[in-house]
Amino acid sequence: MGEVQRSVQEWRATSERALVRAGARPLEAAVQTDVLIEAELRGHPSHGLQRLPTLIERMANGVLTPGQDPDHVWVGSAAARVDGRGGFGPVAARRAVELLVERAEVEPCVVATVANSGHVGMVGLYAEQLAEAGLLGVVLSTSEPLIGAPGGRAAIVGSNPIGIGVPSTPGPFVLDMSTAQVSMGKVLHHRLTGRPLGPNWAMDGRGEATTDPHEATALRAFGGGKGLGLALAFELLVGLLSGTGLGEEVAGTLDTDRPSTKGDLLIALDPTPFVGEGWRHRSSDYLDAVRSSAAGTDPVLVPGDRARRSREQVMARGIAVSTELAATVTALANEKDPS
Amino acid sequence: MGEVQRSVQEWRATSERALVRAGARPLEAAVQTDVLIEAELRGHPSHGLQRLPTLIERMANGVLTPGQDPDHVWVGSAAARVDGRGGFGPVAARRAVELLVERAEVEPCVVATVANSGHVGMVGLYAEQLAEAGLLGVVLSTSEPLIGAPGGRAAIVGSNPIGIGVPSTPGPFVLDMSTAQVSMGKVLHHRLTGRPLGPNWAMDGRGEATTDPHEATALRAFGGGKGLGLALAFELLVGLLSGTGLGEEVAGTLDTDRPSTKGDLLIALDPTPFVGEGWRHRSSDYLDAVRSSAAGTDPVLVPGDRARRSREQVMARGIAVSTELAATVTALANEKDPS
Repeated sequence: MGEVQRSVQEWRATSERALVRAGARPLEAAVQTDVLIEAELRGHPSHGLQRLPTLIERMANGVLTPGQDPDHVWVGSAAARVDGRGGFGPVAARRAVELLVERAEVEPCVVATVANSGHVGMVGLYAEQLAEAGLLGVVLSTSEPLIGAPGGRAAIVGSNPIGIGVPSTPGPFVLDMSTAQVSMGKVLHHRLTGRPLGPNWAMDGRGEATTDPHEATALRAFGGGKGLGLALAFELLVGLLSGTGLGEEVAGTLDTDRPSTKGDLLIALDPTPFVGEGWRHRSSDYLDAVRSSAAGTDPVLVPGDRARRSREQVMARGIAVSTELAATVTALANEKDPS
Repeated sequence: MGEVQRSVQEWRATSERALVRAGARPLEAAVQTDVLIEAELRGHPSHGLQRLPTLIERMANGVLTPGQDPDHVWVGSAAARVDGRGGFGPVAARRAVELLVERAEVEPCVVATVANSGHVGMVGLYAEQLAEAGLLGVVLSTSEPLIGAPGGRAAIVGSNPIGIGVPSTPGPFVLDMSTAQVSMGKVLHHRLTGRPLGPNWAMDGRGEATTDPHEATALRAFGGGKGLGLALAFELLVGLLSGTGLGEEVAGTLDTDRPSTKGDLLIALDPTPFVGEGWRHRSSDYLDAVRSSAAGTDPVLVPGDRARRSREQVMARGIAVSTELAATVTALANEKDPS
């Protein structure tokens, strides 16, 4: 299977055209596209352009509604509830970030929940936006049940990712991780190509580890019982606070025919009211000490470093996607096939 | 090495007497003792009575000061800074919990930082207290550098634990976990007894995994790079917000001669202002579904279940500690040796 490489600007324009053609307003199309492109830039194609056909099919099926402005209501001095009104996930999440940044000027800890909106993409992007606004950011999101408990017969909890951003030089610390050992996309890819799974990736219907991609019915959490505990805790925090689904109730981030019932939770924290301005250099000093703790010559990488490198490289050389995906996306934009 | 088993009440009284004899006020002695006893009840002796001699030596050395009432200042509508004034960790953390619970009556998200106070014990205890007050609780704490990065020559980040509590029936969901693969106490115990370490527990001075307890210079994070990322993120969140140490700056939770420079961060969230009262049954329903996802006859356990079982058993049969620790603690309380 070959690849098609085009410049970042070209893919951006193609994605925006495809979304507008499907009914999105230009601003929505730009915000949604930005999230897909940024995932490609950071080396996470699982959250990149391959999501576009699903989004457009969701629009065609009426379970993702373009033209919606998110609503919000403040439920406390420093707590907001955002209703995405069935629209694009990144549009609602960006509204939540804007609300947090604005309110953080007067409140050192602000929280926002998001319900009724689509998949937000990489949660780290929003944590990074908060960090770039000078705040500490924590972002959680839920998904369909994908992870099972050891000894359990089915998936019971989402691969619930966490993003944590902290201002730093030369760029923010950005943790972006799922609580699953690997993505379900990776398991499905191994199923298609007939390759065995890694030993800790997945389990079968009896809750036993399996390396047979056809036997796998649920992912394993990363890090054993601790990772599973975090996945469950994040499910509860997000689901209860945002009034969105728990476990089996969650749908609409991977399929094309069900309304989205997942939720998001964003927290912004400003150290300055707690400790004054002196904190700003401390994260950079500490992270430099971590980087220089390497026993060899290659520095230890901290969260955000690899994505920053990837971003520079992909900006320079362009984004490569499979010939098949390129043809699909190009057709959705009604452009001439680039392959 | 034998064991001495005494009732929970007897150990509680002995611990309180030892602390008061060392200079603690009775209320402080009770609060600190409660944390040690609750760790024993939950099956975590690493945070139990074996910490008592260290605490008393810290008092003798003037780096843990009894008789201190924590100070606090509100830095926002829903954000407080607690200063433990060099006193007992559990006293300052309990004050933070009280502040959060009180303010949560009017604010749906409240945060408190704690600085200048000793080791808090199991962070899950405070998350559980918030859950018992009907709130979602998240509690983070830092420690001395104990975890190293793969390829790093030394520990650079604490084994920073997280506690997350959620109200539920028959008892709260309580996650309580460190970000290290195992405790440093476990590594030291293997060094004393000459047994090899597990394959993922620790690394040597070149940042390579080692099973030789004498070569181990740093713990490994749980869950590989994701766990290390969480440990670093928690270090930054707690250290920056509370104005306490980062990395090498952190001391005073394991040693007996340095003031405590670790910090704590507590967050309380109330779903009711976001979604109304209907959320209260949802966590129990969901967790019951998780428990009954078992393929076999034994239910899947969720965080909090094991500790609840342990607590019932230890309450009934009493707390067993090593003959040596029993003699030490009893001598500190100036009681007759029970062994």
